[in-house]
Parts: sequence; structure tokens; C-alpha cells
Amino acid sequence: MGKFVMIGENIHCIAPSIRKAMDERDEKPILERAEKQLKAGATYLDFNIGPARKGSKGLMAWGIKLLQSRFDNVPIALDTADITEIEDGIKVYNRAKGKPIVNSADAGDRKKYIDVAAANDAIVFALCSKEGVPADNAEREQYMQEMLEHGMGLGMEPTDMWFDPLYIVIKGMQDKQRDVLNFIKTLADQGLNSTGGLSNVSNGMPKEVRPQVNSIMIAMSIAMGLTSAIVNPCEIQLNQAIRTADIIMDNELFADSFLQI
Amino acid sequence: MGKFVMIGENIHCIAPSIRKAMDERDEKPILERAEKQLKAGATYLDFNIGPARKGSKGLMAWGIKLLQSRFDNVPIALDTADITEIEDGIKVYNRAKGKPIVNSADAGDRKKYIDVAAANDAIVFALCSKEGVPADNAEREQYMQEMLEHGMGLGMEPTDMWFDPLYIVIKGMQDKQRDVLNFIKTLADQGLNSTGGLSNVSNGMPKEVRPQVNSIMIAMSIAMGLTSAIVNPCEIQLNQAIRTADIIMDNELFADSFLQI
Repeated sequence: MGKFVMIGENIHCIAPSIRKAMDERDEKPILERAEKQLKAGATYLDFNIGPARKGSKGLMAWGIKLLQSRFDNVPIALDTADITEIEDGIKVYNRAKGKPIVNSADAGDRKKYIDVAAANDAIVFALCSKEGVPADNAEREQYMQEMLEHGMGLGMEPTDMWFDPLYIVIKGMQDKQRDVLNFIKTLADQGLNSTGGLSNVSNGMPKEVRPQVNSIMIAMSIAMGLTSAIVNPCEIQLNQAIRTADIIMDNELFADSFLQI
Repeated sequence: MGKFVMIGENIHCIAPSIRKAMDERDEKPILERAEKQLKAGATYLDFNIGPARKGSKGLMAWGIKLLQSRFDNVPIALDTADITEIEDGIKVYNRAKGKPIVNSADAGDRKKYIDVAAANDAIVFALCSKEGVPADNAEREQYMQEMLEHGMGLGMEPTDMWFDPLYIVIKGMQDKQRDVLNFIKTLADQGLNSTGGLSNVSNGMPKEVRPQVNSIMIAMSIAMGLTSAIVNPCEIQLNQAIRTADIIMDNELFADSFLQI
């Protein structure tokens, strides 16, 4: 296994300051968040512009050019419900440091995101769900197979499809967490890459508990074979959990100073 | 799976104050360490008197009577290279809160510890090694099978044999850590219980790094199916890692206050 891939989630239009910066094409707040995440060890940056809205045409391409020109062609996950923005973004994307990631497909309405990835030699995040939360791992596996066949039929490498088991909230679905872990193992046993929006697990928990729960969940997930996740790399406890798990999995060489960023 | 079993390791003759207390049959230092560990959530207490030495006859039985009389028949792991002390200890042991644990057998010279456990309806820790560190998981599995057959031949329940994969030091054997995790999964898949001396993994690391490495290793181990470990329950980061992993594995019901001891 290679080093665990941290995808920085902090450039997200749900943050009011980032929404404003995106609307006004204001570089500074976006570059600041990018820099912090890269310093903390993010490999990819997620650039999430949300759904299409007035004035958002060209926003993805603008963001890609901005980030890649300032940060040595940093690889980017193109994250939006507006599929034409992804297509336009890829046109200006520089692959020197890694393929673009199309974020994200699922086995339902969003299957066409696989088509876009296939047409553009991109990676795609493929959420193992169709409508809502899969009931069990049989359902996850069915969706995974459907998407895998679809992608391979379009000429994709299986390893360019990063399957997301769908992390679910512990408060309310505590008895389903082991399913998620076991499904990650199923993916790993087949040599497939995986990813996920980890912080879902601790939704609704007290603020002081969330980093602890996220950190232990990521360590457990890496033990089962998870290869990447969409996370806040600036969350120190989570960041250290990933680094430590990478040492234990022998993905990175141990040094006494390994926890120092 | 039941709640993860923490076996408190702090009553150990390697600590000079405990060695002295054992030699002088001084109750106080031993009771203090016992109380702290139980408050931190230890289920079992390990009572480690080391090898036979002048004046140690009857020490195990003394310790058991002391701890069980003060702490409501707390279950104990009888830990010594002096097998007659274990036999004598079990004679005074009260099983109201759990069977005694014989600590420990291996597939070599210490196979006779299985005999003692079988003869006394006890649990036994069974180290999957013969001489030194097993070369790979095929060797671990061979020793596990040998011990399992031996114990079952003597009428033991398989679940009363808690197999120890042998945690090994990361500094020097970093590329073997995944073997340990995978072997835990092998045990879990067969419905077997497991245990281990976790802190070995961080031997030789800087003091400030050890709790982090131990905590992530225990979380990863629990994901793979580890059912118990011999640990310092008073190490707060480790303790919280175990509690959190127990939540994720659905072994304990989540509450917002779950990290408060």
C-alpha cells in the first residue's frame, strides 16, 4: 500500500467566507486555506463549489488555475453538483502532480460522473449508495459492482475508481459502523482504492468528542485497508492518527520525529 | 463481541516500589495501584510476581486474597514464571467475578501452563511463539493450532484460550506490524479470543510518542477483532482509544459523556 492520501476538505462553499470569496473571485481566503492544508500534509485539495448558481459559471476552472499556479500544480478533487463545471475544469487542469478527481458518482442519478471521469482519464469517487444509506453490505457490494462494471466498460482502470463505503452517523446508526469497516476490508481484499467523508461519523456529538471519534475511526479504517479520506488535515489529532497508522501499516518509514509536521 | 477487556498491567514486580511491597507483604502500594486501575476501567488485574525467588513462596495466594477481599472479588491474571505459585494461587481464588487467567503459555517450554489452566477451569493466555519472534503468520498459526489442540484435548473451551499474536517493536520490525494485525483478524474470524502486551510496539520510541502509537495500534487491533489487551488503563490516551473503539464496534452504547471516566 502507498502512503494514505489525505484530501483536504476545507475549501468548501458551505463556509460563509469561502462562499463569499468564490462569488467575488477573491483569491486570498482560498489560497490561505489551501496553504494551511498543504502544510499539514494534504495530498489533494477538494474544491467544493456546491450546485450551479448565478455567476458560478467558470468558477471551477478559475479555482483550479488559481490553486495549481500558486501551489506547483497541486492535484485537485473537483467537487460540485454542476457536472459541466467539472468538464470545464478538467480542460484547464494540469496533471503533472496527479490526475483530477471527479467528486462524486453514485450508483443512481450520479452514475454519469463516472462517464465524465472515463472520458477524461480522471479518478472518480464512487459512493456505494443509490438512494440514501445502503441497508447492508450486500447492497453496498451490489452498487460497487454496478459502478465498477460501468467504469470498466468505459475503459477505466479499476484503481481509478475510489469507492466510498458511506460513513454514517454513530448517533442513530451505531450498530452499522462495523458494516462500514468490513466493507472497507472487502474493497481492500479486491485491491480497490477507497475513500470517504469521515467526519459524518461524529455528526451531532459534542464538539470536544468529535476529533477523538474521527481519529479512532480513521485508524480503524486504515487497519481495514482504507486508502484515502476527505478530511480536515489541520485537525491535529486526526492528522496524527493518520500519520501513526501509516507508520504501523509500513506506508511511511518511522522516525522519532514523525509526529512533527 | 462483548466489551473490550482491559487487563491492568501496573502491579508488576519490575517496578521497584512494587517489588519491595511484594517482598515485605506491604499491602498499601499494591492496593493503591489496584484502585487506580479499577477506577480507570480495568476489568482484570494482572498480578506479576516474576520468577521464583527467596521468600516468594505463597506470594501469589497472598496477592489474590488481598485484592479480592478489598475489591469485591476482582478477577485476576496470575502472572509468574513460577508455575507452583499459580497452582497455589488458584486454590484461594474466588470466581464470582470471572475465571482466573493463567499468564502465560506458549507453544514451547510453557505449554504446561495450558495443563494448569485445563486442570483448574481457568483461562490461559497462549502466546503464539515457541522460541523468540515468529517469522511469519504461518508460524503463528501453527503454534496457535498446536496449543488449541492441546487445550481442547484436555477439555478446555476454545474461548478460554486467549491467543496472543505477540506484539513486536516497530523500531526494527516495522514491516511486520501488518502481520500482527492480520493474525488478529485470523483469530477473530475463527471466533477465538485474543490478547497481547501492547506496549511492546512502542519500545525505544521517545516518551512523548509512545501513548500515541499505543493508542492507534490498539484501535487498529480492535478493528481487526482483538478482544482484550494487557495495558496501563491509567494512560489516558490509550484508555480513551479503547473506549472509542468500543463505541464504534458497538460493544458499548454511545453517550455524549462516554469519555468521562
